[in-house]
Amino acid sequence: MAGTEGATRKLTMDDIRAAAERLKNWGRWGAEDELGTLNFTAPSDIVAAARLVQKGKVMSLALAYDAKGPQGGKTKYPALGRFNPIHVMLRTGTDAYSGVLDHRKIRGADDIIIMPLQCGTQWDGLGHIFYGDHMWNGYDCRNVTSAGAQKCGIENTREKMVGRGVLLDIPRLLGMDHKAERHFGVQVRRGDYLIVRTGQMEAKLAEQNWDGYSGGDAPGLAFETLDWLHAKQVAAIVTDTWGVEVRPNQTDEATQPWHWIAIPIMGLTVGEIFYLAELAEDCAEDRRYEFMFVAPALPITGAVGSPANPLAIK
Amino acid sequence: MAGTEGATRKLTMDDIRAAAERLKNWGRWGAEDELGTLNFTAPSDIVAAARLVQKGKVMSLALAYDAKGPQGGKTKYPALGRFNPIHVMLRTGTDAYSGVLDHRKIRGADDIIIMPLQCGTQWDGLGHIFYGDHMWNGYDCRNVTSAGAQKCGIENTREKMVGRGVLLDIPRLLGMDHKAERHFGVQVRRGDYLIVRTGQMEAKLAEQNWDGYSGGDAPGLAFETLDWLHAKQVAAIVTDTWGVEVRPNQTDEATQPWHWIAIPIMGLTVGEIFYLAELAEDCAEDRRYEFMFVAPALPITGAVGSPANPLAIK
Amino acid sequence: MAGTEGATRKLTMDDIRAAAERLKNWGRWGAEDELGTLNFTAPSDIVAAARLVQKGKVMSLALAYDAKGPQGGKTKYPALGRFNPIHVMLRTGTDAYSGVLDHRKIRGADDIIIMPLQCGTQWDGLGHIFYGDHMWNGYDCRNVTSAGAQKCGIENTREKMVGRGVLLDIPRLLGMDHKAERHFGVQVRRGDYLIVRTGQMEAKLAEQNWDGYSGGDAPGLAFETLDWLHAKQVAAIVTDTWGVEVRPNQTDEATQPWHWIAIPIMGLTVGEIFYLAELAEDCAEDRRYEFMFVAPALPITGAVGSPANPLAIK
Amino acid sequence: MAGTEGATRKLTMDDIRAAAERLKNWGRWGAEDELGTLNFTAPSDIVAAARLVQKGKVMSLALAYDAKGPQGGKTKYPALGRFNPIHVMLRTGTDAYSGVLDHRKIRGADDIIIMPLQCGTQWDGLGHIFYGDHMWNGYDCRNVTSAGAQKCGIENTREKMVGRGVLLDIPRLLGMDHKAERHFGVQVRRGDYLIVRTGQMEAKLAEQNWDGYSGGDAPGLAFETLDWLHAKQVAAIVTDTWGVEVRPNQTDEATQPWHWIAIPIMGLTVGEIFYLAELAEDCAEDRRYEFMFVAPALPITGAVGSPANPLAIK
Repeated sequence: MAGTEGATRKLTMDDIRAAAERLKNWGRWGAEDELGTLNFTAPSDIVAAARLVQKGKVMSLALAYDAKGPQGGKTKYPALGRFNPIHVMLRTGTDAYSGVLDHRKIRGADDIIIMPLQCGTQWDGLGHIFYGDHMWNGYDCRNVTSAGAQKCGIENTREKMVGRGVLLDIPRLLGMDHKAERHFGVQVRRGDYLIVRTGQMEAKLAEQNWDGYSGGDAPGLAFETLDWLHAKQVAAIVTDTWGVEVRPNQTDEATQPWHWIAIPIMGLTVGEIFYLAELAEDCAEDRRYEFMFVAPALPITGAVGSPANPLAIK
Repeated sequence: MAGTEGATRKLTMDDIRAAAERLKNWGRWGAEDELGTLNFTAPSDIVAAARLVQKGKVMSLALAYDAKGPQGGKTKYPALGRFNPIHVMLRTGTDAYSGVLDHRKIRGADDIIIMPLQCGTQWDGLGHIFYGDHMWNGYDCRNVTSAGAQKCGIENTREKMVGRGVLLDIPRLLGMDHKAERHFGVQVRRGDYLIVRTGQMEAKLAEQNWDGYSGGDAPGLAFETLDWLHAKQVAAIVTDTWGVEVRPNQTDEATQPWHWIAIPIMGLTVGEIFYLAELAEDCAEDRRYEFMFVAPALPITGAVGSPANPLAIK
Repeated sequence: MAGTEGATRKLTMDDIRAAAERLKNWGRWGAEDELGTLNFTAPSDIVAAARLVQKGKVMSLALAYDAKGPQGGKTKYPALGRFNPIHVMLRTGTDAYSGVLDHRKIRGADDIIIMPLQCGTQWDGLGHIFYGDHMWNGYDCRNVTSAGAQKCGIENTREKMVGRGVLLDIPRLLGMDHKAERHFGVQVRRGDYLIVRTGQMEAKLAEQNWDGYSGGDAPGLAFETLDWLHAKQVAAIVTDTWGVEVRPNQTDEATQPWHWIAIPIMGLTVGEIFYLAELAEDCAEDRRYEFMFVAPALPITGAVGSPANPLAIK
Repeated sequence: MAGTEGATRKLTMDDIRAAAERLKNWGRWGAEDELGTLNFTAPSDIVAAARLVQKGKVMSLALAYDAKGPQGGKTKYPALGRFNPIHVMLRTGTDAYSGVLDHRKIRGADDIIIMPLQCGTQWDGLGHIFYGDHMWNGYDCRNVTSAGAQKCGIENTREKMVGRGVLLDIPRLLGMDHKAERHFGVQVRRGDYLIVRTGQMEAKLAEQNWDGYSGGDAPGLAFETLDWLHAKQVAAIVTDTWGVEVRPNQTDEATQPWHWIAIPIMGLTVGEIFYLAELAEDCAEDRRYEFMFVAPALPITGAVGSPANPLAIK
């Protein structure tokens, strides 16, 4: 992970192209695969993950979805058109109280949500980012049309997002990030859901001000972590920031260069805007940084992302 | 469970009022409680549920969220204004291919969902149904306004919906529904998530026609099951139908009389439109009708329901 | 009109109640009326208004509907949940270019809008504001449910909003607002659409900052103008501000006291957030402050407001 | 106009290409033009149109926008993803009645619309249809991205859609459609808004069933009318059908071949789903088939269509 000060040398497009060659997983799980690194988690990993449940404690890693969410804050970067969830009612308790529902012979409330799929705690699907004219596994990017993603839609992941979660709690390392695994007494393994806490979200929550969060500068993973993630064979990577990778970008030639490689080239599923405060506190308390992780995406056909209520169960 | 032929005697409002008195759980978990029967699941139940994971198999109980969902079919009953999810794109692979995103120096897709929270596989929140001017735990129904539910919003459940799931597979009982527990070698216990398969959804899927499903006649739980559910102390009840309870209604004086009691009076969380085919097949195969159940609602502040991708893990 | 300094004496609820008694038009056009002061415009007024078209010039009084609209600016007052229009595409030219539409044998684009009906240039319908438990013409306010306005929906106005428009251009009066009619050589008459320019919108557009506009302090009509409007029998009143009336409110006991009387008591249709710069310039140039005014609301069934593209035709 | 029986010879792509060459108006109003045939209406035409207002009668040509609109009916053709308007409330009279708004010191209702811009009575913008990789005036179709139309957005028309309307009431001709102008004693002229009634909408309204309307077979303009429209120099063409042109298509090689030429090649603005019953009755009564026509589109930035409440004023 890199701090906000950025890396020492600016990346070039040649660095990005070289990484693409070096880290490409296309075809690794067959020409028809739409799941990428989620394939790394084996059934036996899931059984083992369930064994980590020892005190019966469930922790949600989701921010509430509402008008106070992280969209709409000011940043110096261009906006993406995302907005906080708009929640409206189709029937209400005030309708009930007013008697206007009684012709139905039942008094009830009902509601609608209007939300960008990546406005809050969310999974990036493998259709979210392209490399040139291609997406994960070499599919043509024209598979993602105004009608949605015909390849790599998030609905393919409906029986994934279950495994061992491992928390790397960077602020508690006091800068010794290169030794994160050893420090926490936890070894990152194939098929893990790796969860990295930077503390940035909690800082914003404490300020009650999201300015600079969505799309802004952030601590996060440096481009150089891609090789390590590739070698470790994690199923997915998650952070408490807007976009996982360090910002400002480590290059002027590409925006979010880590994304260019992670999603379309490696097929890495990425989780963003996860709320990690409660989990971090619990791990610090019992000194156990591993847990069962269950974080299903909604199977929205053709979606390139999904909100989620990810659970860490210990 | 009653078949679609309905019960022998029509219920009256007196029956409903008597059930309300008999089964009322208001105050059982304190005057401030907003969770109801979800409180029945203890941490030790969650630990035990995790032990049921023995083959590392994850099964999704969600229908895909898309234009082919169960809303919009014809019924003889009044519509509720629900519609299938509308999924639209903010950026696409075709934009990428056309080069119009390149000024951003990243090629990506993004999307929005517009959906009733109860249009597909979903949890009813405790703010969904009122009894007179009250909701769960005696709260005034005017707590559910056009601005959402100020009490019993679904966000309160963000760390619930985890426990032991038990499947009662009615069609496989050949009508011997009163002996369901014995038949499947599984005892329904306090804190369980009880999942009842009627087979109705699969019939509709096979027909490729949802007419008569949403709001229509259905097999389901009779009013008389409320006492049993109350005694069993289940955490939640789930079915593969639109509305859990048997339809036509067992009375002309109320619509969905089971709902009148289950949600506002007992505080019972209810799951509807669950896809149970794969789970049922698996249970029939390994003869194990219990599993770890993890089905988090999205913590949408003030919502009276939530879509979910419920997982059965064995 | 009052400036932002407010009136000298604070209004009391007694003032509001007295005005309600004095200015009540309930029943004036029959017990079934849903149009209020729009009834003042007679067919002969429309014929006369058309005669004002002498140079064939059409001027739009609408702000563009887009993400740069007036919602979302900061104010010191509570927000109302309105947001700028969200415009999304169902099919695009980039889809066309990418070839993904060609199976349809036609290349086209299509789109969707998501917008509060009062987020930009807009008509308030007569279902928008209540006085106690009543709306215009004495209808019970419970006619406006989550299912929309069963009385006084904006669709009732579908053949109205046509007549003589008269511009009162306050900034050009240099504060001599009490003599506005005389100054502009125009007499406000029964059935007119009275359009009052304060210049506030243009100031915000010049600043490129809407802070303080929506819901904020503004020049506008004082409570005392209600008697004059009642006597003049105008069809509707329109301004270039967010809410027509002067803000801060002239009382601590009510928010927007002018609205309390104008809409539910007088049945006055109100237009807000009109763009008047071009019209004002034209009127100053040819010294003609009257014109044909055609500003149809969209007939959205049960709506309490409507966007519009109001036209002044000279 | 052709009946539903279709034309005698099937069109070929060569016919379409020839028409494109013959009827192309690109550059006619300059390389920067985004208005096309709307330019044909001169200020003097607007003055003359206003003189047609002689009885002060306003007729709306809009269908109500609501859940009973023309979308959702069954057809044998592929759907386009359009749906009827979804109207939801932000605050209601039932909220008011329940007292939950009183902390605001004002009781009011507010609402939101979610609607495809072409779901009901509507204008097609010039960004709606492409010819190959081009749109009106030769602009690259990649100007219409997921972010909207950067060229030919409907907002460009904000001061258009005003002029003389002329009704051709086909059903009243008893099939003598080739003599329509003479029959009605009205000469179609440069800059006119030509309104063609087929009676199809009224038939559907009478049946209370929209099956077969949206996207279905319909009476309408044959491909061969394009030359006549080009010669006549009308500003726009409007019908009471879903898509103006006759269906089934007159060719198997293209869908809606008339659209291929009318919009991108000729720059013709097209109005669809207009409600013409009241206007037709009035014209038959007073034998005057011309009137002032005012039908402003909403200036939604980047939109390729717009709902409208078009008015005929006589």
